[in-house]
Amino acid sequence: MTNTRPGTSAPGFSSVRHKVGAALTGFLDAKDEAAPGTELLYLTTTLRTFLTSGKWLRSVLCVYGWQAARGDGEMTAALRAAASLELFQVFALVHDDVMDNSDVRRGQPSAHRALAAAYTEGGGPRGRAEAHGLGAAVLLGDLALVWSDELLHSAGLDPGTLAQVMPLVADMRSEVMYGQLLDLQTTGRLTGDIETALHVIRYKTAKYTVERPLHIGAAVAGAAPAVLDACTAFGIPLGEAFQLRDDLLGVFGDPAETGKPVLDDLREGKATVLMALAVQRASPTERETLRGLVGRSDLDEDQAAEVRAVLESTGARRTVEEMITERRDAALTALDEAPFPEAASAQLRQIALAATDRRT
Amino acid sequence: MTNTRPGTSAPGFSSVRHKVGAALTGFLDAKDEAAPGTELLYLTTTLRTFLTSGKWLRSVLCVYGWQAARGDGEMTAALRAAASLELFQVFALVHDDVMDNSDVRRGQPSAHRALAAAYTEGGGPRGRAEAHGLGAAVLLGDLALVWSDELLHSAGLDPGTLAQVMPLVADMRSEVMYGQLLDLQTTGRLTGDIETALHVIRYKTAKYTVERPLHIGAAVAGAAPAVLDACTAFGIPLGEAFQLRDDLLGVFGDPAETGKPVLDDLREGKATVLMALAVQRASPTERETLRGLVGRSDLDEDQAAEVRAVLESTGARRTVEEMITERRDAALTALDEAPFPEAASAQLRQIALAATDRRT
Repeated sequence: MTNTRPGTSAPGFSSVRHKVGAALTGFLDAKDEAAPGTELLYLTTTLRTFLTSGKWLRSVLCVYGWQAARGDGEMTAALRAAASLELFQVFALVHDDVMDNSDVRRGQPSAHRALAAAYTEGGGPRGRAEAHGLGAAVLLGDLALVWSDELLHSAGLDPGTLAQVMPLVADMRSEVMYGQLLDLQTTGRLTGDIETALHVIRYKTAKYTVERPLHIGAAVAGAAPAVLDACTAFGIPLGEAFQLRDDLLGVFGDPAETGKPVLDDLREGKATVLMALAVQRASPTERETLRGLVGRSDLDEDQAAEVRAVLESTGARRTVEEMITERRDAALTALDEAPFPEAASAQLRQIALAATDRRT
Repeated sequence: MTNTRPGTSAPGFSSVRHKVGAALTGFLDAKDEAAPGTELLYLTTTLRTFLTSGKWLRSVLCVYGWQAARGDGEMTAALRAAASLELFQVFALVHDDVMDNSDVRRGQPSAHRALAAAYTEGGGPRGRAEAHGLGAAVLLGDLALVWSDELLHSAGLDPGTLAQVMPLVADMRSEVMYGQLLDLQTTGRLTGDIETALHVIRYKTAKYTVERPLHIGAAVAGAAPAVLDACTAFGIPLGEAFQLRDDLLGVFGDPAETGKPVLDDLREGKATVLMALAVQRASPTERETLRGLVGRSDLDEDQAAEVRAVLESTGARRTVEEMITERRDAALTALDEAPFPEAASAQLRQIALAATDRRT
């Protein structure tokens, strides 16, 4: 399964993506039409570009969660709830790039860079382009967030179901922000603190990317508590495995495939589990190498190779691979025991395999 | 009524403020207790400081809107809805300061400055303080926004009422963001375009600060359409008058009273109605003065005095004063014709007078 994007080979993935895409397009078209002027269009255009380039893992998991809870028949509400998660994800990514000052996202200019360029092309003074791009990106993220909420509220859920869904959405939002905050606080501080690094990925990825989308989809179908618990037992280890894989790809991956410059994580000094393991096990010389290079904004390819050598020699890379396997297996075991219809389990199994695949 | 903050002298203002404050404190205390770690505390502390220093005009208007629609008896839901507007306002201000790169808000350091300082005090490397402050402020705003939503959803509204309230909230959110975007696009471009400047304040202030809080409060009380229409007839002209007053204070005000450095609007090159009028009427020499000085980030007090002289000599300041009076009178006339209980009308009349008062 080399060169496979997470989950793209799972049955039904592209059909779900297509339907969620239609729900999003319909919503954004209505927004463009209702706009009091044309000034907003460059924001919604940027928003659409962002959506198109996404993997849509969250919305697919949301629909699979709905199927796992034996949702059937009319799928509209589940699709709109799923679509609202993609708008929320645009919000999270756009603000994340502002916070990290990242130039590139998915192989394209990040939103604040794209909006700064659009401002200059529209005749705006070059000296204000960067400030404008930053401001417009903060706004674009805000807009995606409130529209995500609006889409969910207009999804056609009956009041009782909405009352079951909203607390899960509120938890998801608070959790991802808590994860982002931890990320912000730990980035740039090189430590051997594996516990904290695991805490970050649990909040920032495991809950946000996997567990909560499954929960929300399941709740749309009126899931019993046992179904929600099974989503957790499957989702948390899978989400952790998924992020550990992403961290490896962030250092050892092929930019042509990940769409992300491979030096960014090292230049930022991202406090990953991978790095914490290396710091903990490094010899004094190796630790010097890490301290001297990780977090340098001008890190070059040769220096990155030195860091990678330490990640290999300390066994950090190998341990992370083992952690991925362990967590993937735990997720698959949880799936075997889950009270899901077999079709839903089969789709989730495919996702688990694809999302943790080595791909390098 | 010199030296009076908007609305502080209206009957019931401080009592409403006190009750809304209790709703907010209760909500934030619960958030602090439920937090998975202590890392969030410096964000909620900053959030509380921000709330304390606010004028709370929106929440008071929300409660008065509830009273205007003959809401009576149990006030809890109206107070929680009002409190949610204050959290939303923190979101808007914190992100606004990030977008404008403002150092000061209400006489205190803006959120990104305060958070940058807290980071350094907590042992964070000084070189990362600014980036951290910006990132943490974006997050703080995001958190205030999602908590605002959560507070509204847990306000105890029955499903039918919530279904009436939510579209108004969605409109308010979209409108303020549209206003912010226009503001962002026009700031720094000196033009005589009065229409656009009026368009900005209609969205950014008149609808957001006055009309929608009244609407939301009225909808919590299950208002009939005639009540909502009367809120609009009163709220839009008052909100415009309020912003026009604010623009005058931003250039001619006393910083000790406004809590805002009096050079900020001029240094940013804010595209106010005041400035558009001056540009339109300026002689070639006066126009040169404006073009040369407005928008200069290093503008000093002497240069500001030159700009103020042009705002006076072109009659721009006087015209804005007339526009304020006109709009205030329109609001008061609308109030006389509104189907509100007299007690509610009396309170709104006080707010209209105080919020448009000369204060300089």
